[in-house]
Parts: sequence; structure tokens; C-alpha cells
Amino acid sequence: MANPTLQTTYEPPGSSSSSTFTLSFNLPDSRPVSPSPSLFSESSQTTMSSYTSNSKPALARQSTAEVAERDYFHENPAPAALEEHTAQAKAFIDFHAAADRRVVLVTSGGTTVPLERQTVRFIDNFSAGTRGATSAEYFLEAGYAVIFLHRQFSLLPYSRHYSHTTNCFLDFLHESSDGSIVANEEYQEKMQKVLRQYNAAKESNLLLTLPFTTINDYLFVLRSISQLMRTLGSSGLLYLAAAVSDFFVPPERMVEHKIQSTNATDVQKEERDAASNEEKEEEVFDNFDSSPAVPRSKRLIVDLDPVPKFLKNLVDGWAPEGMIVSFKLETDPEILVHKAQYSLERYQHHLVIGNLLSTRKWEVVFVAPGKKDTWIRVPRSKRTRPISGTVSASDGEIGEKPLDPKDLPEGDPEMEIEGLIIPAVEKMHTSHIQNAVRIPL
Amino acid sequence: MANPTLQTTYEPPGSSSSSTFTLSFNLPDSRPVSPSPSLFSESSQTTMSSYTSNSKPALARQSTAEVAERDYFHENPAPAALEEHTAQAKAFIDFHAAADRRVVLVTSGGTTVPLERQTVRFIDNFSAGTRGATSAEYFLEAGYAVIFLHRQFSLLPYSRHYSHTTNCFLDFLHESSDGSIVANEEYQEKMQKVLRQYNAAKESNLLLTLPFTTINDYLFVLRSISQLMRTLGSSGLLYLAAAVSDFFVPPERMVEHKIQSTNATDVQKEERDAASNEEKEEEVFDNFDSSPAVPRSKRLIVDLDPVPKFLKNLVDGWAPEGMIVSFKLETDPEILVHKAQYSLERYQHHLVIGNLLSTRKWEVVFVAPGKKDTWIRVPRSKRTRPISGTVSASDGEIGEKPLDPKDLPEGDPEMEIEGLIIPAVEKMHTSHIQNAVRIPL
Repeated sequence: MANPTLQTTYEPPGSSSSSTFTLSFNLPDSRPVSPSPSLFSESSQTTMSSYTSNSKPALARQSTAEVAERDYFHENPAPAALEEHTAQAKAFIDFHAAADRRVVLVTSGGTTVPLERQTVRFIDNFSAGTRGATSAEYFLEAGYAVIFLHRQFSLLPYSRHYSHTTNCFLDFLHESSDGSIVANEEYQEKMQKVLRQYNAAKESNLLLTLPFTTINDYLFVLRSISQLMRTLGSSGLLYLAAAVSDFFVPPERMVEHKIQSTNATDVQKEERDAASNEEKEEEVFDNFDSSPAVPRSKRLIVDLDPVPKFLKNLVDGWAPEGMIVSFKLETDPEILVHKAQYSLERYQHHLVIGNLLSTRKWEVVFVAPGKKDTWIRVPRSKRTRPISGTVSASDGEIGEKPLDPKDLPEGDPEMEIEGLIIPAVEKMHTSHIQNAVRIPL
Repeated sequence: MANPTLQTTYEPPGSSSSSTFTLSFNLPDSRPVSPSPSLFSESSQTTMSSYTSNSKPALARQSTAEVAERDYFHENPAPAALEEHTAQAKAFIDFHAAADRRVVLVTSGGTTVPLERQTVRFIDNFSAGTRGATSAEYFLEAGYAVIFLHRQFSLLPYSRHYSHTTNCFLDFLHESSDGSIVANEEYQEKMQKVLRQYNAAKESNLLLTLPFTTINDYLFVLRSISQLMRTLGSSGLLYLAAAVSDFFVPPERMVEHKIQSTNATDVQKEERDAASNEEKEEEVFDNFDSSPAVPRSKRLIVDLDPVPKFLKNLVDGWAPEGMIVSFKLETDPEILVHKAQYSLERYQHHLVIGNLLSTRKWEVVFVAPGKKDTWIRVPRSKRTRPISGTVSASDGEIGEKPLDPKDLPEGDPEMEIEGLIIPAVEKMHTSHIQNAVRIPL
């Protein structure tokens, strides 16, 4: 336990501080180089109140979010692939800007929060990447060029139809009489369609896939690509479907090695100490919480800092003219709409799409400034599931209240709700472009 | 914050208790129904000392591990798929027991530790499943029947060659002139070989793949299958390559809904309280640790309990005659061998294979009772990488000290180290069978 990056906090009286693994870190949000507590409190307080106002902050004054941004990107290391991915994105964006084509950045999948520098354990956010990968296909159909920024090994557009199935990919193939490997008869038709769409997107340079893993990878590359998208003006669309962690462990405090559950190196010491067992028990076990005692030495306490909320910078600084759509995933229907409204107000995005974990494939709620919240849902009459094919928004059921999950049938719906979401977003994007007053860069 | 399952602990003086998300839970290990702290301490203390002894506990006395086992499986819910997976495993084991064939249970991939009942966030262990999936192929080649118990969507035997590549699976295929979907020329040969091996394993009923996700799924199904494997006597092999979490959140204390980072519902209240800002700052920010202040209301503290260490029950109760191989992954070379030796002593397995995160594809260390620790490593002379093909252990370099990662070339080795590990394990299993004295069931 000699690692100097481990810091023990919240030690209850009588606990064994030497074997409690507590990672305790601090907020980079608005952190001056040598902050005094009062200054720090004040600036964070400003953050909270400025976000609840609808007025844009004066450009001359450096906002708290700008400070948070500067500090975050100064204090955290740029991912190794950033330069390469940024160059690929730049070439892609320039190509489509020249063709006056709409470009959407689709983010997809969950981010990891490593708990160790040599990462064995991490916190993850549930997401197979279905929303993002499916949406990307419908954006391609709608004529967009798509940058698909995804969690490595999450679902990809087109290949998603085969990668995370209960069948192994090899179950789709067989060896023909001439020894070549061929898709099985029953899958030929669908595979042909999917492969054609995939190849068409590739050959027209309409799809760029870029992977990320950690929350830090994600934030760096999101900033880079957003800034590149300024070139596109109002034709740029940011569609933020990734499940991004709200918490992280700043690198300067991260432990180097795998956190130990049983301190094998302590065992010999414990054996030596066996004679003083009574005293040791006093020390190791505590009862400071209301429930039965737990040996403090065996627990893992992970103390995480909030990720600075600089998504508002997407609007103010990174991509001020593009349209920004973000997602809000909740599990509690009671708070979903309220949380989506709060996000909309705080980040000044153009649309927040709320969804519940249990019904996310059946319905979403569109929350947009000055508009009534609208639920978009898969009509129960839909009995055939298109692989693709643009579906107009009028095909969906539009309502004002959430569904009761108990009313839904088992399994997935017969059509993909992204077939309703993307046309509705596209329509809003068209209005956004029409209403845009171009700001000189 | 009305959720009654949230419990706030470790509140430093002056912090805002209402918005600190602390999940604090207790150890089910050896927990009596109404424990007194002293009794509890004592029984846990017994655990530690009994594990450091090499002598088997008397069968008549209920060991601490047995109590831990009983409590864990009593207090945690059985996964929905347990019955079905157990039935499949039973049919598979009975089939191969009748044929007097060796059966190996290979566990593979990481386990998740959900932080919410409706899981949005979870803790995960790094593992793509490479070790397990690759090992399974070599076990099949060595004539074993394989139960492949794997984290859902991690690598599978055979399909692993195509699923987690940087190429999309569709990049391996094209549409032929007659419209059928065919593997590209350059991949035909390898794909043919892999597909033949996969189909041979399937057709001979030699491979059963069963998925798990959470640590709880894993523990339940591991117990069930281990118990079924008693039928096999010494011909059963447990090869525990999964990266299993040491920590978990007991279900009775798990929060129902997604943990909130920003309490949107508190915002209105905060606005109302704006007049009393000075006081509020005092409350929300603290400086009890040595570094700059952090708003307690914005941090996430996850407090996890240790998973009861009843892997020893594999030896004593679940599968007493089978051979048990477990893995120890570390990042710090200084402690690897010591930790592997400690595991061996504590769990009484027949072999612990130690490996380091940075060199795990290049070398492993075999730690077995009464034998000198032996490093098995890929010879640097190996320049061609077999997809499969049993390689005798003598092809590897066998040493006594770990490699320095700095001496290794970039990227993966040219051969799979599992091609050395499995033949060595197979040899030990042969000795194990020869030395076994059958205990009447």
C-alpha cells in the first residue's frame, strides 16, 4: 500500500485505514491553478446560475464552462489516436462541405471510466450501440454523410445485423461444393441488401467510422470533430446518442496497478499479528453504519468526480451554427421529461430526445424549445420489420404521455423506431438551415 | 432523493448530505440473521486463518466458506436463464460422460457489477475473452468436449477470428455475379479452415456455449455446472479464465433507478434558495481532504462489498475430483507470483496460471503445488502464426523469470500462447486422472 497516488478519505472512527481502497479526487470544473476555497465556490456557483438562464453569455467574458473546458483538456492527456482520427474527420468533412452535403456526427455506445492506469477494472454505461448504429443507417438513407463515432466493438451500421446476434457469425455461412464460403440460402436476400447498402456508403465515402473507449477519448475527439464541423455551418448536425459517463477519475490521482481485493502481501503480516487479534478486530471491523458490520479492509470504495458539463460549449464555441440533438436516458418515467427539459435549458441544444431504458425501442419523447413535448412511438399495427427504408413520421403514433411498459408485447417491436426518429430530426434540421443566419467565421 | 434504498455514509463535516450518492453495503459473507458485531468479526477472522492452512477442514463441521456459500445463494436471486442453462449443461455432460470423454468447463470474459437495479451503469473487468475463446479451440483440438461459459458478446471460439477485428465483418464478403454472397478470395482459405473446425465441433456436439453477464449470473451457473461435473470424476477439468469481479453490490441495497448526477429536481429549490447563497456554499463545498475543494453534491461514491471467496468450494464440495485451473491477472510484476501462490494455497486449486496485463499474450507462469514456478512463453523465433494446430509444450521457451515488457516487439506475437498452455494443462490433467483415487459419490 505504498502507492503514493492512493488517498484515504472518509475514514470512520476505528476503521483500518491501511487497507481501505479509496480513490478520492477533485473537480477540475472551474479549477484555478491555485484556488482558494471561496473563489472556487463562487465560480462554481456562477456555473449553476448562468446555466439556468436562457440568455447567451457575453462573448467577451470567459465563461465558467470555458474555464472548465480549458482546464479539462489541459489536465487530461490527449488520446494517442486523436491526431489520426482528427485528420480523417477533416478530410471527410472537407469533402462533403465542398459538395454542400449535410454531415451528421453520430456518437454511439457507452464510455468507459478506467479505475486504474493499467486498466483492469472500469465503470461502463449500458449501451450496445443499437440506437446509434441504427440511426446512422437511416441518416445515410436520408442523404447525410455520417461520421460514426462509436465505442470500440459496439454495434456498427449494417454489420449490426449480424454481429450481436445469438447466432455466431459462422452460422450464416457454409462451404459450397467448390469449396468457396457462401452465405446460407435463407440469409442471402437480406445479406445482399445490407451488403449493397454498406458498400454503397463506403464507395461514396459517405460513412466514416471512428472508435473510442474511455470517457477521455470521447471528450477529446468530440471537441475536435465539433470544431471541424464549423466549416459546415448550419448543415452540420450533431446527434449525440452515446451513453456518456457523468463521472470520471482524473488521471493525476489514478492508481497505477490493479486495485487489490485481498492484500496477499499483508497475509504474512497478519499471521505475525495473530497474537494481537482482539485489538485487530477492533480496528478492522466497524459498525458506523446502521447495518451489520463489514470488514473495512475488504471493501472497495470508488469516489468519482463529475465530468465537467461543457456540452454547452458545443453551442457556444465548438459548433455554434450546427444543429445539436442529444439524448437523455432514464429508468424512472417520473423524471424523464423533467430531466430532458433541464438538459435542453442548460445546454441550449436544439432538441433533447428522452427515452426510458425499458421502452426505448418503442417510444421516445422530443423536447425542443418553444414546442410541446411529443412522444413518438412505434405503431402497434406494424407487423413487418423493414431492414431499412425511410418511413415518414406520420407512420408513427404521436402522443403526449408515455406508454406503460406493461402494455408492450415481449421482445423487440416489428419496426425500428429510428425509422421514425431520423425523418423527424431531418425535418427539424431543414428548418434549422432555413432559419439560420450565417455568422461569418 | 426520497429513495429509501440510498444510504448516506462517510459524511464529512459541512457536506451536503442530501445530494451525495453513496451506496453502502454489507458483507453477506458469514452473515448470521441477527448478527452481533463480535460474532461477525469472529467468524470472518476464522475465514482468514482457516484459508491459510493447507489441511482440509473436517467434513462434519460446516466451514465458513460453506456458510458464505449458503448465504450468498440464499440472498441473491437466481438468474432467469439458470434452469435452462443447467439443463443444457446436464445433457451435454451426460452425453460425454457416457462416452468417457474428458470435459472442460472454460469460463471466459469479464463479469459486470450492476450499480442500479434497472442497470444503466456497471463496473466491468477488462476482458475481450481472447484467452478463453482461444483456449477453447485448443481444448477441442486436444479431444475435449468444451462448455464455453462466456460473457455475452465477448469473443467466441472460431468466430473470434472475425468478430472483434478492426474490419467490419461485411468487409470479408462480396456479391458474386450470380447474386450470392461469397467470402472474398483472400479470406477463403482461412475461413474454410475455421468454418470446418466450427462445424465439426457443432456436429459432434463437442461445444456448448452458454452466456452470462453479471457476477451473480456467473456465480450461480458456475456452481450448477461444477456440481453437474461431479459425474465426470477426475475427467472433468475446470479452466477458469473469466475475469471475475472481486466486488459486488448486494441486491437488497441496490438503488432501483439510474443514479442522478445533477439533481434536476433540486434546481428549482436551489433557485428558491438563491437568497441564502452564502450559507449554501458553506454547506456544499468542503475541504476536508488535502486537495482543492469539491462540491460533495456532484460526486459519486460507490462502496462495494467483497464477493465471498467460495471458490475453494469448487474443490471441497462442488467438483471434488475434477482438476481445477484458475488464472490470476495482475499488472504489477512485483506481486504476480506471490498472488498466484496465495490463490493456490487459499483455494487449493491444482494449478494457478499467473499472467500480466502487458505480457499476457507472450508469457504466463504456472504455479502448482510442490512444483517450481515455471514461465511458459512464446519463442521469439516463431514467425508464422497458426490459426490452430496443437503445438507441443517443448516448442515454447520455458524459464524462471518474467520477461521485461520493454523487450517485446509491438503488437501481438506470431503464435498463440494458448497453443503452449493447453498441451501443458492437458498433460497435468492426464497425471491428475492417473493419480486419482475415485471417491464414491
